Order: sequence, then structure tokens, then C-alpha cells
Amino acid sequence: MAVADIDHLIGLIARLPGLGPRSARRVALALLRDPQRRMLPLARAMESAAMSVKTCSVCGNLDVTDPCRICVDPDRPHDIVCVVETVSDLWALERAGAHRGVYQVLGGVLSALKGIGPEDLNVGSLFERLRDGSIREVILALGSTVEGATTMYWLQEKIAPYDVVVSRVAQGVPMGGALDVLDDGTLAAAVSARRLI
Amino acid sequence: MAVADIDHLIGLIARLPGLGPRSARRVALALLRDPQRRMLPLARAMESAAMSVKTCSVCGNLDVTDPCRICVDPDRPHDIVCVVETVSDLWALERAGAHRGVYQVLGGVLSALKGIGPEDLNVGSLFERLRDGSIREVILALGSTVEGATTMYWLQEKIAPYDVVVSRVAQGVPMGGALDVLDDGTLAAAVSARRLI
Repeated sequence: MAVADIDHLIGLIARLPGLGPRSARRVALALLRDPQRRMLPLARAMESAAMSVKTCSVCGNLDVTDPCRICVDPDRPHDIVCVVETVSDLWALERAGAHRGVYQVLGGVLSALKGIGPEDLNVGSLFERLRDGSIREVILALGSTVEGATTMYWLQEKIAPYDVVVSRVAQGVPMGGALDVLDDGTLAAAVSARRLI
Repeated sequence: MAVADIDHLIGLIARLPGLGPRSARRVALALLRDPQRRMLPLARAMESAAMSVKTCSVCGNLDVTDPCRICVDPDRPHDIVCVVETVSDLWALERAGAHRGVYQVLGGVLSALKGIGPEDLNVGSLFERLRDGSIREVILALGSTVEGATTMYWLQEKIAPYDVVVSRVAQGVPMGGALDVLDDGTLAAAVSARRLI
């Protein structure tokens, strides 16, 4: 029988993304079966992370320091800024080692449907850096959705007055991807962006 | 960039059942985005559950008291014991309101493959209760697997000397289930256990 304490725990776990009541019970049971070696270490890691996590005031990344380690890394070219929607996108690019410069995390993309306007995007520090003249290139790495494209178009317009190169990540066939399962838009983009070999 | 603290947290989350590195990052990010309202309450609920959870010395259930609330509930008939494999099974039966008596959680089923023998099953307190003469019926509610069936057969043999009714949960077509997707064994069991209407 699940009691108040345990029910409360399951309720909190069930609210995590990708988990529902059933998987939350499974997770809770796994933790409850081994409280000392599984539940307490996780509880403490969460507590310590919750206490130490900060949003970088320069780029919007999450880290235990502000500015974040990427923004203070002397080995990275600070004049190439990659604009992403979420911290998750930033982490993905870092894991892939796909970008050597610094970032700007918007925290969202323009969406009339969700009521997200330019004032909701974390772009203040990007334009500060643009005004400083400390940026040479801005890489727009937003998703190929209507909202992503709208946001890239809007940013491009806003960045145009500054003397910087603006680029956007290439669209095409994903690595290891079969052509016949791709949507028409991706195929058209991949063909029109074809390169001589 | 994920740093030591955050990486450690993701690593711990990724070890939970049903979660992998990708979903762990998603969960960690959701928590990190809202440390005060999401991560700390979860951390504290875990810590408090870890501190208070106990294995019931009578039935093997997990609860904050020992004996568990089911075992001390005066409104439940204590002479009808339902034998289940896991605490998860017990919780499922409780949610369904399928059993009004008490339980015995084996913590596993006999398996030559996994090297689980009778000595590994939590049956001591079941046989103690049988010797006491405090049990009238034992309901075997183990899964319809080879291991489950073996365990039920073994238990049936062991319980035979005592003056108790032994039953096992019915096999058949699940509620809302289509016949044509069921396996042959279930179909055969459902037909042979048919009831006049």
C-alpha cells in the first residue's frame, strides 16, 4: 500500500517530463527498494545541484558558475556566437563538439500560438555583445520549424545593422538517415543545398 | 555545458528503470530550470522517503511503518493471504481493490536461470502464519510465466500439509482485450476456464 509519503514522492516523479503514473511508480519502487544506495545519493545530488545551479547572465546556459564555464573559457573564440533555442540544444552541440565558440540561449522561439514575442526571448546580452563589437559571426542554430524559421528571420533582420557575418546551420539528410523516410521539405532542402564532390 | 555536479545528477537519473541518458538529460534539465519549485521538493521527498521506508517484517511490503498498514489494518480479514512476487504487484492489486485480505511478497520467483531458489524467497513469515493456524486461504497471484507457475506449484506442495484453501488467480482474456492478439496459451486457458452464463 502506498502511503502519504510514498504517494507524494510518486506524484512528484510523475510530473517529470516523459514519465507518467506507471513509470513513476516503477522509479519510486526501484528507489524505495534501495534507499541508502540509490535514493539518498540521488536526493543529495538534486539538492546540491538545486543549490548551486545558476543561469549564465551572458548566454543563458545553466551552470554552477555565472558566467558559465563556456563564457569564461579563454580557449574558445568569443567572437563566434551560436544562437540556440534551449540549454538542451546547447548541450547537444557541446556533446557533438560541433561548435567551438560561445552561445546565446534564447529560451524559446517566436510563436504567435504560444504568445511568445521578441520581448520573451533572451537576446539582450546578444545585442549588448553586438553593440560592443565583440562578435564577428552569429550562427543561427534553431530548429527547422515554422517558429524556428520565423525567429531566425527576425534575428537576421535585427542583426543586419551590425557588421557581422550571419549564418544558419545546414538543412539536409541526417547522418545514417534513409532518403525515403524523410519529409518533402528536408529532401527539397537537401537537394537545393547539394555540393559538388 | 554539463559540469561535474550536473553530470553526476544526470548519471544517477539515467540509472533509474525506464530511463536512459537522453531522457535523464531531459529530466535533469526540467529540474534544473526550476530548482526551487521542482528539484528541491523532489529531493526532500526522496530524502524523507529514504529515511522512513521500511520493509514489513510480516508481509514484505514497503511502508513507513513495520508492520505495514495493511498488516495492522483491523478491517481486513487477516486469514486470507494473497501471495505476490513484488511490491509493485501488491500495489497494483490495492489500486484495483482486487484483494481485501493481507499479502505475502515473495520478492522473486523460482528461477534456475537466475539462480533463485526457495531459500531466496521471502516465505518464512508465510509459513509461520500457516503454523500458527491464522490463515484460512492462500491466494497465489503470481504471473503466468514458467517461473511463476513453477513457484505456484512449489508453494502449493509446501502448503498442502496445512489445513488451508489454496487458490490461484484466474487466467483468461484481459478486460477490453481483443481475442485475436492473445497468445495461444491464454486463449486455451480462457476457453478451458469458461463459465456458464
